[in-house]
Amino acid sequence: MSAMPTGTGIDATPEQLADVKFDAAGLVPAIAQDIDTKGVLLMAWLNAETLRMTLDEGRMVSGSGSRQEVGRMGDTSGDRQFVREAYFDCDSDTLLFLVEQEGRGACHTGEYSCFFRRFGS
Amino acid sequence: MSAMPTGTGIDATPEQLADVKFDAAGLVPAIAQDIDTKGVLLMAWLNAETLRMTLDEGRMVSGSGSRQEVGRMGDTSGDRQFVREAYFDCDSDTLLFLVEQEGRGACHTGEYSCFFRRFGS
Repeated sequence: MSAMPTGTGIDATPEQLADVKFDAAGLVPAIAQDIDTKGVLLMAWLNAETLRMTLDEGRMVSGSGSRQEVGRMGDTSGDRQFVREAYFDCDSDTLLFLVEQEGRGACHTGEYSCFFRRFGS
Repeated sequence: MSAMPTGTGIDATPEQLADVKFDAAGLVPAIAQDIDTKGVLLMAWLNAETLRMTLDEGRMVSGSGSRQEVGRMGDTSGDRQFVREAYFDCDSDTLLFLVEQEGRGACHTGEYSCFFRRFGS
């Protein structure tokens, strides 16, 4: 039985936070990847507030936003993602979080990953 | 020395293609993950045409689009991504491609992954 994961804040610098580019709706996409299995779990859309909360708390935080993706990161299911490492891309407009997945999975459907449907017949 | 990778088409069904949701700008984000290392390489934005070309050719295809992310997938550098598996998420508005990375890396900066900058001091 593994210990219950807890959040540890990511110590982003003010310069790094200022460099993040949000889209016209004030959102930035954040990919969550399982740090153990390396599986890609989901993509969420964060605003400036939920990004700061996510980094401060070391846990992917949902919040208000115009996209339905925001708001299904384990608040109700308890299947939370604890952020262990956080990266931003060359354009500073996409984030990658390496997370410790709690519970059965990341998808609101109950699947381990939101990417459970494969193209092909 | 490994063999030069080549593209093999992904046989998406018409129903799957019709299910993909594009944003107001006509684009859908596509995460590229290295099928060997499992590293997340980049996120690209595809329109209906470049998505179809990518699946048909089995290679991530750049194309016209309103976002600068479109257009830097190895056309000039030769560091191409051959798509081996393609997935779509629970909302059908984000794609995940497992790719075979050719050359030194996926990022236009010359880095292996676009996510080479880590939050933290």
